[in-house]
Amino acid sequence: MHDEEARGGLAQWKRYDAAAEGFREYWYPVMVARELRGKPVARRIAGDDLVLVREHGRAFALADRCPHRGIPLSIGKRDAPGHLTCRYHGWMFDVSTGRLVAALTDGPSSPIVGKVCVRTYPVEERCGMLWVWMGRRPPVPVEQDIPEELLAPDAQIAKRFVLAAGNWRYATENGFDEAHGKYLHRDSLWMAFKRIPAWNQTRIVESEDGLWITRRQEASYAQDEYPVVNRWPRFHVWQRPQGNIVQTANNRLSLRLPGILRVLQPGSAGWTHYEWYVPVDRTHYLYLQLAVAWTRGLGALKWWLRYWSYIRWLHHGEFNNQDLRIVRLMPETHPERLFRPDVSITAWRRLAETRARDYAEDSAPAVPELVRG
Amino acid sequence: MHDEEARGGLAQWKRYDAAAEGFREYWYPVMVARELRGKPVARRIAGDDLVLVREHGRAFALADRCPHRGIPLSIGKRDAPGHLTCRYHGWMFDVSTGRLVAALTDGPSSPIVGKVCVRTYPVEERCGMLWVWMGRRPPVPVEQDIPEELLAPDAQIAKRFVLAAGNWRYATENGFDEAHGKYLHRDSLWMAFKRIPAWNQTRIVESEDGLWITRRQEASYAQDEYPVVNRWPRFHVWQRPQGNIVQTANNRLSLRLPGILRVLQPGSAGWTHYEWYVPVDRTHYLYLQLAVAWTRGLGALKWWLRYWSYIRWLHHGEFNNQDLRIVRLMPETHPERLFRPDVSITAWRRLAETRARDYAEDSAPAVPELVRG
Amino acid sequence: MHDEEARGGLAQWKRYDAAAEGFREYWYPVMVARELRGKPVARRIAGDDLVLVREHGRAFALADRCPHRGIPLSIGKRDAPGHLTCRYHGWMFDVSTGRLVAALTDGPSSPIVGKVCVRTYPVEERCGMLWVWMGRRPPVPVEQDIPEELLAPDAQIAKRFVLAAGNWRYATENGFDEAHGKYLHRDSLWMAFKRIPAWNQTRIVESEDGLWITRRQEASYAQDEYPVVNRWPRFHVWQRPQGNIVQTANNRLSLRLPGILRVLQPGSAGWTHYEWYVPVDRTHYLYLQLAVAWTRGLGALKWWLRYWSYIRWLHHGEFNNQDLRIVRLMPETHPERLFRPDVSITAWRRLAETRARDYAEDSAPAVPELVRG
Repeated sequence: MHDEEARGGLAQWKRYDAAAEGFREYWYPVMVARELRGKPVARRIAGDDLVLVREHGRAFALADRCPHRGIPLSIGKRDAPGHLTCRYHGWMFDVSTGRLVAALTDGPSSPIVGKVCVRTYPVEERCGMLWVWMGRRPPVPVEQDIPEELLAPDAQIAKRFVLAAGNWRYATENGFDEAHGKYLHRDSLWMAFKRIPAWNQTRIVESEDGLWITRRQEASYAQDEYPVVNRWPRFHVWQRPQGNIVQTANNRLSLRLPGILRVLQPGSAGWTHYEWYVPVDRTHYLYLQLAVAWTRGLGALKWWLRYWSYIRWLHHGEFNNQDLRIVRLMPETHPERLFRPDVSITAWRRLAETRARDYAEDSAPAVPELVRG
Repeated sequence: MHDEEARGGLAQWKRYDAAAEGFREYWYPVMVARELRGKPVARRIAGDDLVLVREHGRAFALADRCPHRGIPLSIGKRDAPGHLTCRYHGWMFDVSTGRLVAALTDGPSSPIVGKVCVRTYPVEERCGMLWVWMGRRPPVPVEQDIPEELLAPDAQIAKRFVLAAGNWRYATENGFDEAHGKYLHRDSLWMAFKRIPAWNQTRIVESEDGLWITRRQEASYAQDEYPVVNRWPRFHVWQRPQGNIVQTANNRLSLRLPGILRVLQPGSAGWTHYEWYVPVDRTHYLYLQLAVAWTRGLGALKWWLRYWSYIRWLHHGEFNNQDLRIVRLMPETHPERLFRPDVSITAWRRLAETRARDYAEDSAPAVPELVRG
Repeated sequence: MHDEEARGGLAQWKRYDAAAEGFREYWYPVMVARELRGKPVARRIAGDDLVLVREHGRAFALADRCPHRGIPLSIGKRDAPGHLTCRYHGWMFDVSTGRLVAALTDGPSSPIVGKVCVRTYPVEERCGMLWVWMGRRPPVPVEQDIPEELLAPDAQIAKRFVLAAGNWRYATENGFDEAHGKYLHRDSLWMAFKRIPAWNQTRIVESEDGLWITRRQEASYAQDEYPVVNRWPRFHVWQRPQGNIVQTANNRLSLRLPGILRVLQPGSAGWTHYEWYVPVDRTHYLYLQLAVAWTRGLGALKWWLRYWSYIRWLHHGEFNNQDLRIVRLMPETHPERLFRPDVSITAWRRLAETRARDYAEDSAPAVPELVRG
């Protein structure tokens, strides 16, 4: 990776630069499945306003605007199973097709019936969440957009959705960012008993299946001698070396499209952290955190006790709130000046630029050469 | 009226589309007359900032900006009868002419006196309200812009002014809208004991005097058989047929320029409802509701008891707040798709497009052919 | 001064019109010096975001954006004396040079070190305040931008900084404005016992050193006979003539660049009032008020008792809050119509237009002819 390449802002990555509201040809998690019950729920995803409803146990998503006068369907009513009626004039839509099946206030023979449709979005339910396909082309199987281990029957998945201020790309870059963990998070409670190293030598490698890029730490320096500060960082006696992070060939942190982070917790921890940065609009994203353990029975009970007793507020709360604050403060455009650890960021940008699914398949760029892991 | 014609947004109606801040050549009601007393009152009407003052019992309106440095005159003081002084430097204006009669802080011989004027707006007091002429041409008699029955000496007029979010045109269209009453208002408390029909066949007719357009219900269907919902609506046993609304040839609801709605209440009710949608700016309007009965003496006393005991909060409040919410939710522009009952809306748009008073009289379009009632 | 000249808005004064965010080539007071201690302080001055820090007792100012990803340095940390570290990735900057001395999370040999710099701003500490040089050319001695009497060792300086809404130019014009004091402030508590005259004949004169312009009252009229109001103003019996203000040849109020007002209090008062209108951005300014007496020992004690017992809340508070309200209400652009007392305003505009320090010295306009005082 040339130093040259590491400079400049988003402008040099044309597709990525254009994706301020997200890459559309993906499945995105939008809410906890069991929270969709009797009442319609409104969500903005990738710049589109959606309404989600559940009918006969299944979830459906439609554009949240009645084609008549533009009133949100999410304030609508349920006059019949499988249908959603606009609150304004009683236009009744089949939630599975989006077709207008009746315009109640114009009688059964209303000429408008059958001539109007609202856009529907494919919805799937997996891992206790609802996933919506935002693309213009036919959806891929939802399993293609979910890390397969999450679909294992013994996966115990704790979730936290937060609507956050900032652009999804900066949130994603922050998540995979090599260096910030070593400074921003150093004083978090979550890290109070761990020794975060000063710096790493990192190489970004690609997974066999071409899906993930991974930060491989080729060398890790617990402390070092700097000008001005001298020995840095200073550890407290109660801080122990953090798992295997001070050793080499660590592969704990990986990222894939459309913005999914996976953080293997140190070996003894027995769980894995995931993050999604779901684009909402140019200035907001839906931040989803998962804490996942693979276990059943008593093991599952222990996991949930552990999650709710400290992981929830220390890791999903205090630790990652530091990231929310930073992403909110990042200016929309800034003549950035990247440095060596930002190979993680440029590798992600290249992945997004060259591999993101596109509507016009034929015009998609050829698969580029990335180092394989 | 062709189905063709009923489609498309405001763009096809050029004058109406241009009137986002209202048609100017009209008298508009702006406040309850008795609420203008010692202190100046500020109002924005049709995009203009006004200050209203009362002097010698008469109301006056001026542009709410001192020509000197632009400070609102509505924070000014009253140093002499018939005059309003700018709070900043003591420029004293004659409220009837707008002329600068003294610049107190520059002495009696100030050269600026007599050389500066603020725009005045003609004001009239009728029906217990103040009416302001917003036009550029000389005002018509205010009686031309007030339904004549409101000027009758025995008219008992209850008023409610609300500053509401949304554009005045959508508020007007909502008021005259044929269909929304049959769905949006169906679950209001005001309608709890009435049977609103499912749908009507409607024709829009024009009054003899060419002022009003009226929704004539040629047939009305209390209930009907629909796909999916079957019999709709379902009435409760305590809901009685609502007056003559289930019969044919009903002429209860009429609209005229510049946005005045009249709703004759069912025969036995003995009162009439009026609404004005006074343009404030592109995104706000002043919503005026009147409840009017024609009576005197003991009859008047009974009317006011009736108004304040339930009409005020049930009709002027709960019922019409449903409309305020909808108008606020309507997007500023939307590729609308009209349906059959929207003949009411297109008739209004045509009326506005072809009949609204214009500044350049010579270029006014010829009176179009509308069906006469 | 021709009547012609007194008309029109800012447009005719090209440099002044362009200086919506202030004239840059000046020292501006930005905060009370002793309020800068351990934590960095953020300020926006002349459109630039700054961070101020104190190191080894000295104050420093830097641009408040890390060049890396644009995060404000004002949320940064202090890892070593004389340095400020970005909270995000540990980029450590020398506060005196702005140089990047270490990128902690990239190890001691990080190639970025020495290649990146944030802009620094010269800072001086005088009169208990911090002064920042916002210019592009080398700073003049700070004493050039502070009225010299404030630098006297026995000056007792009471300060009040307020972040206010409005443009700094309108605040400055309001401060030097001849006429508004005679109307706007007439009913302030501060003036309750004083007789403010009706109007003055004023000439604007320039100080010997060319720095200040001064309002010289050539004649002052306590009361006068006007049309409509007749005798004005009416004084209360408890209102006494205010110092020498009713006499001629009063030189109490002066203004200089870049927007510094000096108001000599009436002879017996024994103190002087100063105001700075520090540009923040187009719509905000930092309003600094000073109340200054020259005394020591017991005299100083008496002065501070006097300041805190009534000058603080009556003059720095109630009286000048009337000005804050007015400046906030002034429209950003307005086709103003000036009058005779506005010679004070046009003289200031001419001073600003012709004398404000400029970056391109060679293109600076020649010194114009102003009446010398």
